[in-house]
Amino acid sequence: MTGRLTPEALEARLREVGAQRYHNLHPFHRLLHSGKCSKGQVQAWALNRYYYQAMIPLKDGSLIGRCDDPALRREWRKRLEDHDGDDTHPGGIERWLKLTDGLGLDRDDVVSTRLLLPATRFAVQAYVHFVRERSLLEAVASCLTEMFSPQIISERMAGMLANYDYITPATLAYFQKRPPQAQRDATFALDWVTRHARTAEQQQAVIDTLAFKCDVLWCMLDALHHAYVSPRLIPPGAFVPADSDG
Amino acid sequence: MTGRLTPEALEARLREVGAQRYHNLHPFHRLLHSGKCSKGQVQAWALNRYYYQAMIPLKDGSLIGRCDDPALRREWRKRLEDHDGDDTHPGGIERWLKLTDGLGLDRDDVVSTRLLLPATRFAVQAYVHFVRERSLLEAVASCLTEMFSPQIISERMAGMLANYDYITPATLAYFQKRPPQAQRDATFALDWVTRHARTAEQQQAVIDTLAFKCDVLWCMLDALHHAYVSPRLIPPGAFVPADSDG
Repeated sequence: MTGRLTPEALEARLREVGAQRYHNLHPFHRLLHSGKCSKGQVQAWALNRYYYQAMIPLKDGSLIGRCDDPALRREWRKRLEDHDGDDTHPGGIERWLKLTDGLGLDRDDVVSTRLLLPATRFAVQAYVHFVRERSLLEAVASCLTEMFSPQIISERMAGMLANYDYITPATLAYFQKRPPQAQRDATFALDWVTRHARTAEQQQAVIDTLAFKCDVLWCMLDALHHAYVSPRLIPPGAFVPADSDG
Repeated sequence: MTGRLTPEALEARLREVGAQRYHNLHPFHRLLHSGKCSKGQVQAWALNRYYYQAMIPLKDGSLIGRCDDPALRREWRKRLEDHDGDDTHPGGIERWLKLTDGLGLDRDDVVSTRLLLPATRFAVQAYVHFVRERSLLEAVASCLTEMFSPQIISERMAGMLANYDYITPATLAYFQKRPPQAQRDATFALDWVTRHARTAEQQQAVIDTLAFKCDVLWCMLDALHHAYVSPRLIPPGAFVPADSDG
């Protein structure tokens, strides 16, 4: 039985989880940003990742829907604004569709989510259910992967712009806007969980939550890798790239 | 088995439900706005109704958290803004606390909700659970009592200002802001349910939902009436007014 960690030690443990489990370590991420993906593989990634983007506001609404602290709800509402946009500014979901448009995917194929890999759907739903069902502390902590996302986004943008001639800054509009939002959200969430994890057990729950969330993201890339890279076993009903040699 | 109603006939049926079941018909509402409540009774009303106000954003967040239409989520987000406010504008909950402050209630007593009538808690929770668990159509329809709220609010404001010398326009700030918001929300929701209730069964579900929601509001006034008007049987642990003769 260990004692309660200092805030610095808790943050260090969280960064350690990220260093071991965040999906920037996944072979699919390396293929993607190093230019080694076929266009069909990039399409499959964007189409599957769309579902994650599209479900984020449901996750955030669910958190607001169980939160009895108006100040936390106000802070969390910013995430709804970021992803859903408003009458004058497109949100993150709309910007993600610029990417799928730019990749030549049919918008209805993307929005309908009918060509998803089943594992993508299950992983994303596991995330939404986690936020609905676990403690509020764990629900907040589940966004802590944002601590690492500015780095992966910058790797992705630089790599994809350099390596794929069909990727333009306009199609990557999502990633241009996202790092400062992610930074703000991660700073808030890390501070919040540090203050609200009052026992060693609660701190461990925060650390376990971050590992769970890394698993969600990792699992999504595993499914893409298995279906579209090696051994290229596309599940029945899932997206089949036009350049597939299957 | 009846056929599907025209939009006009559906609206007429909804207005009929309101005419029969909305809580402006409740004796407690009449006592309140006609000046016949003691200050303790007005306090009890404001303290109990606070819980309803405080739970509205959880209800709205829960709706957003299960809604896969970004346009509906954006529209619904306005309700979160109205009730929770933002960095510069106080929301409805904060304005409700101006009322309970103005009535001389201790803010911690109010916000803690520890002095609520149990029936208030159960009725409000029934509303939140309804929105979480029923169809999205029913979740949206459950706000249709807003169709009738501008009228009750104007009755309440005029009556309370005229009849209670401790009630000032400042303490009624909540009600001054609310009618245009309620009007906007009711117009949107009525249009939305009219378009989305595609079968006679779905239309009946909308009508039944409005009746349910009227029951929630009515039940809250019943509990106040029983505890504080007649027979004045205050449940153990609930708010006891200083002017109580109990």
